[in-house]
Amino acid sequence: MIYLDNAATTFPKPEEVYKAMDRVNRQLSINAGRGSYRLAREANQLIVDTKKMMRELVGVNDTIPVIFSPSITIALNQIINGLQVHDNSVVYYSPFEHNAVARVLHHLEKKKGIKIKELPYDEATGEVLLEQLPYMFAKETPAAVFCTHISNVTGYIVPVSEIFSMSKKHGAINVLDSAQSMGLIEVNAKKLKNVDIIAFAGHKCLYGPFGIGGFINVSGVQLNEYIVGGTGSDSLNLDMPSGEESKYEMASSNIVAIAGLNAALHQLHAEDNYKHEKMLTEYLINGLLNIEGIEIYTPKNEEQRVGIVSFALEGYKSPDVGLILDEDYDISVRTGYHCAPFIHKHLKDEKYLGTVRIGLGKYNTKEEIDSLIKAIKELRWENA
Amino acid sequence: MIYLDNAATTFPKPEEVYKAMDRVNRQLSINAGRGSYRLAREANQLIVDTKKMMRELVGVNDTIPVIFSPSITIALNQIINGLQVHDNSVVYYSPFEHNAVARVLHHLEKKKGIKIKELPYDEATGEVLLEQLPYMFAKETPAAVFCTHISNVTGYIVPVSEIFSMSKKHGAINVLDSAQSMGLIEVNAKKLKNVDIIAFAGHKCLYGPFGIGGFINVSGVQLNEYIVGGTGSDSLNLDMPSGEESKYEMASSNIVAIAGLNAALHQLHAEDNYKHEKMLTEYLINGLLNIEGIEIYTPKNEEQRVGIVSFALEGYKSPDVGLILDEDYDISVRTGYHCAPFIHKHLKDEKYLGTVRIGLGKYNTKEEIDSLIKAIKELRWENA
Repeated sequence: MIYLDNAATTFPKPEEVYKAMDRVNRQLSINAGRGSYRLAREANQLIVDTKKMMRELVGVNDTIPVIFSPSITIALNQIINGLQVHDNSVVYYSPFEHNAVARVLHHLEKKKGIKIKELPYDEATGEVLLEQLPYMFAKETPAAVFCTHISNVTGYIVPVSEIFSMSKKHGAINVLDSAQSMGLIEVNAKKLKNVDIIAFAGHKCLYGPFGIGGFINVSGVQLNEYIVGGTGSDSLNLDMPSGEESKYEMASSNIVAIAGLNAALHQLHAEDNYKHEKMLTEYLINGLLNIEGIEIYTPKNEEQRVGIVSFALEGYKSPDVGLILDEDYDISVRTGYHCAPFIHKHLKDEKYLGTVRIGLGKYNTKEEIDSLIKAIKELRWENA
Repeated sequence: MIYLDNAATTFPKPEEVYKAMDRVNRQLSINAGRGSYRLAREANQLIVDTKKMMRELVGVNDTIPVIFSPSITIALNQIINGLQVHDNSVVYYSPFEHNAVARVLHHLEKKKGIKIKELPYDEATGEVLLEQLPYMFAKETPAAVFCTHISNVTGYIVPVSEIFSMSKKHGAINVLDSAQSMGLIEVNAKKLKNVDIIAFAGHKCLYGPFGIGGFINVSGVQLNEYIVGGTGSDSLNLDMPSGEESKYEMASSNIVAIAGLNAALHQLHAEDNYKHEKMLTEYLINGLLNIEGIEIYTPKNEEQRVGIVSFALEGYKSPDVGLILDEDYDISVRTGYHCAPFIHKHLKDEKYLGTVRIGLGKYNTKEEIDSLIKAIKELRWENA
């Protein structure tokens, strides 16, 4: 099988991830706790170590809270619903947001009456229309801005630093969804500037497993608790404990998933992964450009794209392309709308029922891209 | 090490659970999806099969929704915050509730102004005072009733069938927290009668892993969505899809954890586990009763207790007992309040800073209980 759905989840993971998870599953999968007994302390130490590695990865110091959640989606529910915004607050989001942000904002909009507004999209370039932002933000003050770092549909690297610096002038809380970027391009809190919260997923470009995500509260944003429960501490208190991590971390830690993330972080060479995926991205786009009757949804600026390439094929619905690639070529791609509700009105891909998405990963090869291109050419020929 | 913290999480798990998780991690840990490609369909089939096994376990038919969540705590947040209750609705809970219910109800109380009320406790027997319920429910109509099935502090089997039948006369929504019972005693929706929702944890008596829990919506209670996100389906819809399972299942499924639960269910022999744990429970209580200066927090009625035994030792704070058992005897127990905020005012164990809790599991032996009893006797002797 040629696996080209790495944007959904990277697969496979490094051997060390599998080994660490199996080992911890067998030896340490107990309820992590501070003082209880040796194994519980060991499990807790593994969590502490993994958080430390996350801090190092994003370049923040030891005092910055890292909250572990079962997934980045859960983390984003906690962030968005925890925001101390008021009715009529205006919250902006990029046109590239995933439903882990979009649906949660919509849900909050229905409950609280906040106003949500999309940042403008430039159809000529496939990018955010930065020039308009100062006017938008001046007209309607941003209470918060949500930006994905890399579009999970077009591979576009959103210029979050520029966006966040403009919104910060108006006091906005800036939230970065790093699901598609952390582990691939630099996500450095200091260099990005003006980022308040970074939400992350363990199972994508970090090459960790399902079951672990979270957020880094870079500037210590006060968030109301949204999901609560037992914490193994302060049990008689019906409120969550007051610690800036523990107040958002309910239920037993998934120590097996954390062990996987820990091993993944030890194996991570983000720069190498970027170089490899960037090479494959351009190789793939060049290959696709040689095929007639193909529409490629990629930002024009080569510097602003990596890892993910979407396209549609004339004469085919995208889901049919996916089915044929699977059944006749054993190539796994994702087709459709990819949980990204806003971008498709700009791409105008609904006549194809969405896009065919190639999600590249560090284990993909040029030979696999060659096989994909060959398959698509055959599809074109069949339909010619 | 003698592991006696099975009430926190059972450990170890059956070998088959570890094997299944490692296999699925290596071969199938992709984003489960319906039509996308072969592996995604296989992963989806594993989810379908596991839900089917959960339905069989609780004796409901194929049409009953089984919602998978990353944990029972997340599930209870979804249930409690999804309830279509109004300000001034009265929600009852047992004195034995865990913070996965207690804190969530308290959180809702602060947000919505519902009224929460504890069911009465009988200090003479350590049981719920059933006789008072008809009067309580008549006086203040129950909108919902939350009962844990087995107390995670005293091992008391709560007579949920009786409680739920009384509350159902007033139209209450009855929610069972089966964290400590599913896989140990019978949790049969038909026999329990009047249960509307059963929340379950994968990693306790079912002997599955962390990362998988959920709820079975036996009577199809309408719940508002509380946690939302991508579903891999209906992506252009900013609301969750309308399916009675999919509307509550956001984010990528943790297929590795589900594989573990699946293997655990294949290995489950609940009756054998009950018999073994019941034998150990009574053996342990008898052993403890022979020690002077020990206070045992267990319901008087032998038929109504299993799996968990709490006690305190005169002259010791409970956390110190735990530390000594760990350091000098390599025996792992949990001490303190066990995330159960209500019961301790009845047990009056605060002078000991909570209890020493023995959580029994299917791999424990009489010899291990002997070692524990011997250790406690030595502690007593040291302090005599």
